[in-house]
Amino acid sequence: MLLFAASRAQLVAEVIRPALAEGAVVVCDRYVDASLAYQGVGRGLGIPIVRSVNEVATGGLLPDLTVLLDIDPEVGLARARGEAGRAGVERWGGGDRLERETLAFHRRVREGFLTLAGNEPRRIRVVDARGSVQEVHRAIWDLVAGFLRGEQGGPRAEIVP
Amino acid sequence: MLLFAASRAQLVAEVIRPALAEGAVVVCDRYVDASLAYQGVGRGLGIPIVRSVNEVATGGLLPDLTVLLDIDPEVGLARARGEAGRAGVERWGGGDRLERETLAFHRRVREGFLTLAGNEPRRIRVVDARGSVQEVHRAIWDLVAGFLRGEQGGPRAEIVP
Repeated sequence: MLLFAASRAQLVAEVIRPALAEGAVVVCDRYVDASLAYQGVGRGLGIPIVRSVNEVATGGLLPDLTVLLDIDPEVGLARARGEAGRAGVERWGGGDRLERETLAFHRRVREGFLTLAGNEPRRIRVVDARGSVQEVHRAIWDLVAGFLRGEQGGPRAEIVP
Repeated sequence: MLLFAASRAQLVAEVIRPALAEGAVVVCDRYVDASLAYQGVGRGLGIPIVRSVNEVATGGLLPDLTVLLDIDPEVGLARARGEAGRAGVERWGGGDRLERETLAFHRRVREGFLTLAGNEPRRIRVVDARGSVQEVHRAIWDLVAGFLRGEQGGPRAEIVP
């Protein structure tokens, strides 16, 4: 958890804050919420400890909008296997340490993410990820575009799809 | 700071706690106090943040006795240079990142250490390190032996010098 936080501290200091200072929109794949769900809930370290260490790491920087792609872990893991199979890669059993975790672990992580979303429904928006790539893409796009247009408390900006 | 804390978490989990569980006396060169002084005070991160991250890393494990070897940074750095010179090693300017820091930095660190000792005079004992190796060794030995004999609140144990 401390190594993830150290990595995040470097990312925030060297990439995210400089980009924000230039007015960029930063899109980030996994951030503090992922540590809260995977390490705080999944690994059982507890959310308060993981949150306080990550506040130190990020200087309290949080996203304006977080998109949570929600799916049953069994379906999600089967998808990961299928994609790896199509790519000719041995992923199942050879994935990273989190992917090799038990289904019970992934169910705890999912519940953790959904709890976080329930506590901050304005920032964390849940997208049903059971649909096709096209459907999920559309749902995310509508959410982000609406946010950038100033709906749901987001900034007002020109959308150029 | 987070990387030091991660390293310490591993040391505590894999080495220190198992040794303590077997009843060993663990002697450790630099621990949480060093991070408080170097990173909290020297680097200016603040003691509360460094303390809270290290509490997570160590599970709150602290030494029963801490020996602080105190010396004026100018004298200490000159010693480090001299020793390196005798060993034929280019240490000054080639030492680690902390050794290459300014004298002002080392003075802040010393003040930090002395403040910590002032706050916990029972646990942190200050040894004047200006003497010879033999004199400093004797002072540390007397302190530790007294502690192990049960003086100053330490455990009672048989000392075999």
